[in-house]
Formats: sequence, C-alpha cells, structure tokens
Amino acid sequence: MSDLLTIGRKALESQPFSKLLGTQLLEFGDGKAVLELKITENLKQQHGFAHGGVLSYLADNCLTFAGGSVLGDSVTSEYKINYVRPAIGQRLIATAWVQHQGANQAVCKCEVVVTDGETTKIVALAQGTISKIRQEK
Amino acid sequence: MSDLLTIGRKALESQPFSKLLGTQLLEFGDGKAVLELKITENLKQQHGFAHGGVLSYLADNCLTFAGGSVLGDSVTSEYKINYVRPAIGQRLIATAWVQHQGANQAVCKCEVVVTDGETTKIVALAQGTISKIRQEK
Amino acid sequence: MSDLLTIGRKALESQPFSKLLGTQLLEFGDGKAVLELKITENLKQQHGFAHGGVLSYLADNCLTFAGGSVLGDSVTSEYKINYVRPAIGQRLIATAWVQHQGANQAVCKCEVVVTDGETTKIVALAQGTISKIRQEK
Amino acid sequence: MSDLLTIGRKALESQPFSKLLGTQLLEFGDGKAVLELKITENLKQQHGFAHGGVLSYLADNCLTFAGGSVLGDSVTSEYKINYVRPAIGQRLIATAWVQHQGANQAVCKCEVVVTDGETTKIVALAQGTISKIRQEK
Repeated sequence: MSDLLTIGRKALESQPFSKLLGTQLLEFGDGKAVLELKITENLKQQHGFAHGGVLSYLADNCLTFAGGSVLGDSVTSEYKINYVRPAIGQRLIATAWVQHQGANQAVCKCEVVVTDGETTKIVALAQGTISKIRQEK
Repeated sequence: MSDLLTIGRKALESQPFSKLLGTQLLEFGDGKAVLELKITENLKQQHGFAHGGVLSYLADNCLTFAGGSVLGDSVTSEYKINYVRPAIGQRLIATAWVQHQGANQAVCKCEVVVTDGETTKIVALAQGTISKIRQEK
Repeated sequence: MSDLLTIGRKALESQPFSKLLGTQLLEFGDGKAVLELKITENLKQQHGFAHGGVLSYLADNCLTFAGGSVLGDSVTSEYKINYVRPAIGQRLIATAWVQHQGANQAVCKCEVVVTDGETTKIVALAQGTISKIRQEK
Repeated sequence: MSDLLTIGRKALESQPFSKLLGTQLLEFGDGKAVLELKITENLKQQHGFAHGGVLSYLADNCLTFAGGSVLGDSVTSEYKINYVRPAIGQRLIATAWVQHQGANQAVCKCEVVVTDGETTKIVALAQGTISKIRQEK
C-alpha cells in the first residue's frame, strides 16, 4: 500500500461522518480517488434505494480526495451532481479525477456507480471545485 | 399541525438515512420546506465542522421537500451547492423554496444556515431540479 | 445616475461582445445588478426563441456585475443555470443579487425574465461564484 | 461527410445566433459533438479574452448537440460550467460527450479548449442535462 493511500485512509478515518457511514478509500493519488460504500439499510430512503444524500456525500468526498491528491489538504468549495438512476445494489463506488489543476484550486469530476457484484451501473455524475486549505501555522 | 406537515413528517421518518442523522421537518407546504438537524459528533469531519456531505444531504432533501410540496411525490434530479463557510454550531437549518414550477418539474433553491442559538450564519446555498415521480399504479 | 452605475456602464461598454449583443446595464450597486437585452433576430435559435447561449451570457454577466458591485473588478469562476421556459418576447431582463460575500469571492444568484411589455415570465435561474481579480500593480 | 453531420450543420446554420458568432460543427454523432469558433474582436470582453458568455454559449450548444446525437431534437435543460483559465488564443474548440443516456434525457459533459495553432489549453469544463423535445405534430 502506497504511503499516500495510508495518509488518505487516515484522513478518511478521522471523519466521524465517514466512519458512521462505513466509507472505504480504495485508491488515492495522482489526481484520482476511489471510494467505496456498502449500501446498508441505514443508508436508504423510503423507496429502498440508497438515499440521494448518501450519493452526494460520496461524490463530494471523492471530489475532495481527488483534488487533495494534487493540492494537499483541501475542501470542496462547490459542486453539482446529476442523479441518473435509483441506486439499487450492494455497494456504491465513486471515482473522481482532476480535470484541471491550478495553483490553489482543481476542477474535478466524479462518477458514482452501484454494483451488486455482477452488474455495475452509473447512478450519479458530478463536477466541482476543490480548494486548497491555506495553512495558518 | 397541518395535514401536509404530518404527511411530510411521515415521509421523512420513512427514510432510514434521515432517521440515522436525526433530521426534523419544521415546515412543509406551499412550495416551501424547512429541515433541522442537530450537529452531533457523528456528523462531523476531521476539522470538527459538520461534514460537507451532511450539508449536501440536508440541502438535497430540503429541495426535494420544497418541490414535493407542489408536485407530489418527487425526487431531486440534479442540484448544485456552494459551501460558503465551515458549519460550526449546534444546529443546521435548511430552508428551500420553489422558484419555478412546471407540470412535472420544479426549480428550487435552498439556503442552509448554522446556528448556536444566538447567531445564525449561512453555510451553503443550493439550486436544483425536482422531478415528479410518475405513478405506475 | 449614480457614479457606480456610470462606472458599470463603462465596464459593459468596454466588452465588445456585450456591445455586439446590445446589452444595457439598468442597475448596479449594493450587491445587485440588472441587465437588459432586446431580443433581435440575431439572438435567436432555430425555433424562434432567444438562444440559450444568450440567456447564459446574460446570466453570467449579471452574476459578475452583482459580485463586482461588492468585490470590485471580478470574474465569474463558475455557475449553473436552469432554463425553465422558451424565451419568447421582446426583451430579456436579468437581475442578480449577492447571496453571500467573502473576502475574495461572492456567491450570487440570478433570475432572467422575458417580457413583451405586458407579461413577464421567468426563463432562467442561475447561481454562481464570483471571484475578485487580484491586482498585480 | 456523414449524413448526420450534414443534418447537424443544417441545424447549426438555422440558429441565427450561431451564425452571428461564426460557430462551425466539426463532428456530430454517436453521443459526441465538436464545435469550433474563431475568436474575433467581437467575441471578447474588456481584458481582451474571449467573453465568458461566448464560452458558455459554446459549451451549452455543444452539450445540446452531443445529447441530440442520441436523443434527436433536444434542448439543454440545465448545466454548470467552470471557467479555469482566460481564453487567449485564436480558436475555441468545444467537445461534448454523452455520459449517461435515458429515454428522454442525457447527462453530458463538455470540455472547451483554446488554441493558437501550436498550444492547446483547457479553458472551461461543463456538465448538463439535455432533454428530448416532445413532438406535438
């Protein structure tokens, strides 16, 4: 496991909300990040799908990690997401890439898929701005 | 309490993810919805603020309720969110309004504030498309 | 006419693209801007409505002016727009407001209406980030 | 030249606004579209770059063509765009792809680059929803 992936996993583990949901960081580095989340009952909405807010959380976090892999400690400043299909399946996998990197910001995109182990389908697509946190120390 | 608010609260309670987070519906009707969420430790990220994904979830859900108040059973098709300030405080309150209503869709906006009981500050602003669910029955 | 409006009109006149289209600045100041554009044949698409790109241009420019009224010389960093109705009429009027102002950025919203002199209808809604241009001098 | 490209070019030529700006359709089909626009003086803003509204117009139109290549006659319902660099150069080239296709809508992304013939740089990135026009005839 790369040192960068170790650092990324520590960052993810230090987020109580990500621990509550059970998010795993699968890849991290070179302008790319992959997050995985098992769809438990707790994460669903009233129709039995993963809640849209779960997909948004996952896309948002994945965008931040992708941007952070080139900018260092970062936050999502803004993003937009399109939901394209109900998230029915066992696991969500979000993959985000840096599309353009500036000095203090990166524009990243993210694709969220749902998989039941056999078939994999896109459920959401996102694009956003990741901003480097200015260190005061 | 209006009948509509009772219906809205039942819808919210039927979302396991919203129960996990503890979201409350304060207002619902006439193209407007207000949701409240107490910022517990579980909902934070590594810097001690409410996680961006929590704000996104709340904005997304509030947009859906606002649109749903005029369209009936609805989902968020897409939205964008700008985070404007770290969410430090006791409670998040999201308010969403319908800005334009069509036959099957509504464009809504949402403002999310954080409050510690004394001061209230905007933390996020969102705009999105809410789509009526086509009933198959 | 306020000095600020004079300054804003000079800025608009110094944009060759805005002159080509015929945009007028009606209000400018205190976090608000209003732009007007007559819908000539040149600005239409194949179905006889004002082209979506014209609405986008107008919303984008109006967002920049609103943000610029509080930040000084500024650019639009990003925005999203929802088209809600075909723009059929004589004139487009875009109104933008600052929703949140930070040190170097403002989040603004914009509403674009079409009017034939008697009736006025919303045709587009936008939200975006305006960023102060760093002066190098 | 494919029949589809011929059809696409006729559609573009039937847009007065696209004729005014001078847009050319370079590719059209299979969920992809490429538009080109020469940066003339008329298309600039006050700092000598192509106006943001020109980039927005081009991205919007390219998203519509990409979606239309799989959906038939279509419009852009909504999109978001990030400007990442001033558009300084001779020509803008926008390329859009369908990322997800449903029965009546497609989610597409678009990349706009500027080129001076030798170097090519990304100036804007967009994502949006393209909707099939319901034929009433």
